[in-house]
Amino acid sequence: MAGTKIQAPEGAAAVLDKGFVKLVDFMGGDMRAVESARVSFGSVSKGEDRDRKLLEYLLEHGHFSPFEHSVFQLHIKCPIFVARQWFRHRIASYSEISARYTEVHDEFYIPEAFRAQDTVNRQGSVEGKLDQKKLSAEYAAAIEASYAAYSALLKAGVAREMARGVLPVSQYTQFYWTINARALLNFLDLRLDKHAQLEIRRYAEAIAEIFREKMPWTWAAHRRLNDK
Amino acid sequence: MAGTKIQAPEGAAAVLDKGFVKLVDFMGGDMRAVESARVSFGSVSKGEDRDRKLLEYLLEHGHFSPFEHSVFQLHIKCPIFVARQWFRHRIASYSEISARYTEVHDEFYIPEAFRAQDTVNRQGSVEGKLDQKKLSAEYAAAIEASYAAYSALLKAGVAREMARGVLPVSQYTQFYWTINARALLNFLDLRLDKHAQLEIRRYAEAIAEIFREKMPWTWAAHRRLNDK
Amino acid sequence: MAGTKIQAPEGAAAVLDKGFVKLVDFMGGDMRAVESARVSFGSVSKGEDRDRKLLEYLLEHGHFSPFEHSVFQLHIKCPIFVARQWFRHRIASYSEISARYTEVHDEFYIPEAFRAQDTVNRQGSVEGKLDQKKLSAEYAAAIEASYAAYSALLKAGVAREMARGVLPVSQYTQFYWTINARALLNFLDLRLDKHAQLEIRRYAEAIAEIFREKMPWTWAAHRRLNDK
Amino acid sequence: MAGTKIQAPEGAAAVLDKGFVKLVDFMGGDMRAVESARVSFGSVSKGEDRDRKLLEYLLEHGHFSPFEHSVFQLHIKCPIFVARQWFRHRIASYSEISARYTEVHDEFYIPEAFRAQDTVNRQGSVEGKLDQKKLSAEYAAAIEASYAAYSALLKAGVAREMARGVLPVSQYTQFYWTINARALLNFLDLRLDKHAQLEIRRYAEAIAEIFREKMPWTWAAHRRLNDK
Repeated sequence: MAGTKIQAPEGAAAVLDKGFVKLVDFMGGDMRAVESARVSFGSVSKGEDRDRKLLEYLLEHGHFSPFEHSVFQLHIKCPIFVARQWFRHRIASYSEISARYTEVHDEFYIPEAFRAQDTVNRQGSVEGKLDQKKLSAEYAAAIEASYAAYSALLKAGVAREMARGVLPVSQYTQFYWTINARALLNFLDLRLDKHAQLEIRRYAEAIAEIFREKMPWTWAAHRRLNDK
Repeated sequence: MAGTKIQAPEGAAAVLDKGFVKLVDFMGGDMRAVESARVSFGSVSKGEDRDRKLLEYLLEHGHFSPFEHSVFQLHIKCPIFVARQWFRHRIASYSEISARYTEVHDEFYIPEAFRAQDTVNRQGSVEGKLDQKKLSAEYAAAIEASYAAYSALLKAGVAREMARGVLPVSQYTQFYWTINARALLNFLDLRLDKHAQLEIRRYAEAIAEIFREKMPWTWAAHRRLNDK
Repeated sequence: MAGTKIQAPEGAAAVLDKGFVKLVDFMGGDMRAVESARVSFGSVSKGEDRDRKLLEYLLEHGHFSPFEHSVFQLHIKCPIFVARQWFRHRIASYSEISARYTEVHDEFYIPEAFRAQDTVNRQGSVEGKLDQKKLSAEYAAAIEASYAAYSALLKAGVAREMARGVLPVSQYTQFYWTINARALLNFLDLRLDKHAQLEIRRYAEAIAEIFREKMPWTWAAHRRLNDK
Repeated sequence: MAGTKIQAPEGAAAVLDKGFVKLVDFMGGDMRAVESARVSFGSVSKGEDRDRKLLEYLLEHGHFSPFEHSVFQLHIKCPIFVARQWFRHRIASYSEISARYTEVHDEFYIPEAFRAQDTVNRQGSVEGKLDQKKLSAEYAAAIEASYAAYSALLKAGVAREMARGVLPVSQYTQFYWTINARALLNFLDLRLDKHAQLEIRRYAEAIAEIFREKMPWTWAAHRRLNDK
């Protein structure tokens, strides 16, 4: 009934049960940051060793603007509750699929394993003795019922923008995301953190891998400084 | 079972069936914009007539920065699907209640009347001959079932951050919102527009009323220019 | 005495007497905006005609986010008083040469022709009967005296960051500038305007040319809408 | 010849020889940050001790958004070269006096004492054995000559926007500045740093005093964390 499902594009890294992260485009790199910093100093590249030291110096002293000239563009598919955390990052550009315009697909995040409520860190979750099979069945049944209600409302002629009101936040959405390397490092710092929800952490891990490939010197310097 | 519900605070304007908009604080005003503009000109107030003309001149010629020195602070309660549209506005500050930290309440948006899918404007909705009573019952039943599943998952020990995966986007959320007058005018232009979904339009109308009270000259000039 | 002058890099467009605009890198394009918009609609390209109409539709209805996924990177050399107007545009990234770190060159903007004070538009200038030769000599003499004082202070051991206090705002500076297509259109609208100072308008014209080359459909649609 | 000079407004803190910092307005405070954070937790104030601990917890774990709901508004008068560093901070609002619109005053920064070039930190300055009297006379003479040239150009009918090309970056300018507490802490961190130029550091010190008065708990927590 719903339109053609958008498959994970080629080269995308799978995340969670139905999500992905895919690099669409990239501009810049480690040397772009070096050059942008050296415009300040009126000089050019001075060999790998000194260029890498410069990058580390910039990061250590909070001179982040040279990293803004490198830009990542990603195509993301993730559950709505993950997207809700994601969109809090304001220094970035977003183009998201519209559930007003298109009928949404029967695609929801079904956890592989449920985590128990953390009673120490009220915001967290921990591994716990839970009846995974039973919980999974209940969770899936709830989601199926929601999607059935959505379909029925659409069939009765209700506008998509209203019918989607019954759809759960585990529904998958998609968006294009453009963000510079400085803002992306900030995103990764917050979303790789052990306090971040495991689901968005999985996306951050996939993106960190892309960052490491595209800007290896910057990534290495950043990790070295933050592991201190 | 859930914690104490946060009641609509005193002075809040009711929006939709359970939402509200409440002005928490405000800084600036029409004369602040005048003064901020006149710092550019090295002069001060010149009487209401000339001050109002100045405001209109600024808006007409795209000199928006003097309006950034007036700041609105609002407390909002709205459905998640409305919040999702809202948070796309990046030049503003948000502090939202966390469904990871607190158990969410049994509060969902139930439309007074369902609108039919607009077949001309694929993104819109129109009044249509729909069996409101039947639809309303189906919609409410779906939401109740979702909340029951959420409660059951919590009872079984599932972490809040995971259990909420079954909750629909019609669930109410709350946030503090701080935004300057320039960015707020932009928000209002987009969200009062007839292409905006009716639900967020209701919030924009309540906020427009607050804007009009706090900055009447600016509002009048803005309306006059946009009605041309 | 000063360090090696940075020559206009290859491919740079000359602006004013010693300035330039040079495209360093670019990401995206017209079709990127189309694709980013269509992610919202869950569809792909539909032929030039419909894709161009989509771009015009987006611009006309204030749907600007699809244009944020195209990014321009420029190397600019301009007088300080132009840079001061430029840096007011906050949705962009800047890396500027530092007069604290390097000794600045003897490079200042010398107008080809002086304009008279506009007495109607207090902020503007007009062609007028001025003794160009005499004015030019006076202007150049003032600047030479300033640079001589700067050099003398440096020679006496004064820190660069203090000695530059005597240098005039006509001094040339350089910076890397990264900006997305949406923000760049806004920059161009304001800086191509007849109320903008002629000097920054010259830069805007050079950049408009680059925009037109890289995103011809977007540029054409934008011009068509703004000429209405 | 120039228009009425704008005197330091009442209550302004003097900075450098002719500059000032003046708090125009303020919204929020420590408790606003507490309340904004607690909206996330669905609770209210819990006594000074626990509220202060919450503020420290937020700052320590990078939860900065609750601090965005407190907003400072300042009127600043500073040399252009200081303003140039200042305006690099993009998450803030600026309204600056225009040298295109008004004739600028004969007000320039004259250092009390010249610092020598630091030969270790190429970007810095150090105390050094300099002939202060001689340097001061040379510096002042250069500036007077520049202002005389400016006046002569104006007298000959040259437009203000062009004549100002000969004015040095030590000229005083003025602006209104609106910035939230989160962004202001970032500004202060960078501009109180010993690597910042002494002149802007003086402004940061005056503003830090205002911050400390208006948000004493936040300031104390921030200092405690950064002195670790």
